[in-house]
Amino acid sequence: MTPPFSRPRNFDDIRSLLTRLPTVDLTAQAAAAAREPQLTKPPGSLGRLEDIASWLSGWQGRHPPTLDRPGVLVFAGNHGVTAQGVSAFPSEVTVQMVANFAAGGAAINQLSDVAGADLSVIDMDLDRPTEDFSQRPAMSERECVNAFGTGMEAVDPKWDAVALGEMGIGNTTSAAAIVHAACGRAAADWVGPGTGVADAALDRKIGVVAESVERHRAAMTDGLEILRHLGGRELAALAGAILAARLHRVPVVLDGYVTAAAAAALHAVNSTVLDHCLTGHVSAEPGHTLLLDYLGQKPLVNLGMRLGEASGAALALNVLKAAVACHTGMSTFAEAGVSDKD
Amino acid sequence: MTPPFSRPRNFDDIRSLLTRLPTVDLTAQAAAAAREPQLTKPPGSLGRLEDIASWLSGWQGRHPPTLDRPGVLVFAGNHGVTAQGVSAFPSEVTVQMVANFAAGGAAINQLSDVAGADLSVIDMDLDRPTEDFSQRPAMSERECVNAFGTGMEAVDPKWDAVALGEMGIGNTTSAAAIVHAACGRAAADWVGPGTGVADAALDRKIGVVAESVERHRAAMTDGLEILRHLGGRELAALAGAILAARLHRVPVVLDGYVTAAAAAALHAVNSTVLDHCLTGHVSAEPGHTLLLDYLGQKPLVNLGMRLGEASGAALALNVLKAAVACHTGMSTFAEAGVSDKD
Repeated sequence: MTPPFSRPRNFDDIRSLLTRLPTVDLTAQAAAAAREPQLTKPPGSLGRLEDIASWLSGWQGRHPPTLDRPGVLVFAGNHGVTAQGVSAFPSEVTVQMVANFAAGGAAINQLSDVAGADLSVIDMDLDRPTEDFSQRPAMSERECVNAFGTGMEAVDPKWDAVALGEMGIGNTTSAAAIVHAACGRAAADWVGPGTGVADAALDRKIGVVAESVERHRAAMTDGLEILRHLGGRELAALAGAILAARLHRVPVVLDGYVTAAAAAALHAVNSTVLDHCLTGHVSAEPGHTLLLDYLGQKPLVNLGMRLGEASGAALALNVLKAAVACHTGMSTFAEAGVSDKD
Repeated sequence: MTPPFSRPRNFDDIRSLLTRLPTVDLTAQAAAAAREPQLTKPPGSLGRLEDIASWLSGWQGRHPPTLDRPGVLVFAGNHGVTAQGVSAFPSEVTVQMVANFAAGGAAINQLSDVAGADLSVIDMDLDRPTEDFSQRPAMSERECVNAFGTGMEAVDPKWDAVALGEMGIGNTTSAAAIVHAACGRAAADWVGPGTGVADAALDRKIGVVAESVERHRAAMTDGLEILRHLGGRELAALAGAILAARLHRVPVVLDGYVTAAAAAALHAVNSTVLDHCLTGHVSAEPGHTLLLDYLGQKPLVNLGMRLGEASGAALALNVLKAAVACHTGMSTFAEAGVSDKD
């Protein structure tokens, strides 16, 4: 099949793609809405499972919806800003964890198995960290577009949903800076412990975020420039994957705070760009709750997770499977000979 | 294997079982606690998944915990109190839905499949509704003990967890009355729409609950007497299943409001009886949130479901599977060659 886009060469190519986003398929959604009240249960009694079935139909562009072949994408990147002492773990952990993903030993391997999902982990030039954004822009436009394009190409159009997440020591600092730049408020509102910084290290992290956003503010003229100045390659790739999934009509389940930050950068360019995305979970990172409110996203699960790796999104794929199984597998009142509400 | 109990003949037999409850296995829990910090993730970053792995170990009495063979039990009963017009659906729907369960057409069939769980549906004398408890006690002690024993025998000791739920037109009225009797407050706090009553019908439901509890108050001397006066057979069976699962060391996932009401009747006799139980979800039935607070239970999922049939508990089995998969399948820092926190 001909891909619905060419790999972008520059920000203007991306901006152009962002102006021609596919919209929800109202015919498929109407078919879901027509079936739902016929199923053997009181109207509305499956709660959000009913909404999810309709949403999947609309964004997959077909009825019935499917969830037989979900994908999980984890983008991994390294960050120059770790030089500022913003993380509890050393930078080499990123590459070590990518080896752990390849060997099947990480949480996301187990969670992908439970959900029956294809897992791909994409190494975003781990031996070449982004620049320290507290000193200079994290990436050139060319580097940022390259990472974005890698994210776009990672989305398999055959998936019927994709869970998106990341791994990158230092990337909650990058996420907080992006969100502070894109959404305003005080830097401290967006900075949390990440893998586990506290006290003076947490204060340092807040200071780095506040000063970095101040330093680049004039140059950050839109969401893509925010991503370039403050992002890591894995955040640019996440943004690319969100856009490509929209173009391929693959519904997205977003993971935690870092993934939401990449989404927020796109949202700053076109506020409808996340309509094909659900949020898998709300993380324990405090800025995530605020950011989800800002983006109008309501998480599916709230279990105090804060690992990244797409772990919360992969867990939520089970909820999507349950929604599709009920919507497609249940009998109607007529088929089952069950009396409807009087 | 010799069962850990004989089928009770009367309330005193049940009261006796309730005084010798197995306690959590601290050795197994210590083994889980020793493994958890070695796994390749920041400490605590899997949130409640970590707690669940420990809890399963402790109540299964072994480490590592398993979740290879979960069960789902749905008890179905009919209620004389439907004569008071408390439900939006007619009573014959209970038996029709049991046929739908047998044919594989209900929500719980699909949700059990997604969770890889064995589903058993137990028909609690559907052709013989309990007495209308607004007029007289719902059951004799003998009937109540019989239903309780049926619930006990339904628990397969080979299951490594069991999701418990119910089906019964009229049973949110029974549940509200039990909870009002066991936990106090105003009747209106515990009465909700059930399958969909509103306005004058909802007021009637509140009146029936308030007056019925008043009528039987003097005779309801403990939780078992509450169950007998106000319960349905499926509620007595649920209470029996909770107790048998404890005796067999099978951890329990409770479904929604009606299941929690059965649990509350047991809790009134021995407040430690639910320590081997988690709550799968919080239902849209408003009394459920209040009751979970009262019982000290924190639901795993909150998706606005209000179907019963063990649907929320079966959905939550996927969370338990994810917890076990992470705890048992992840590599340690040493195995993976990943640097631990500095």
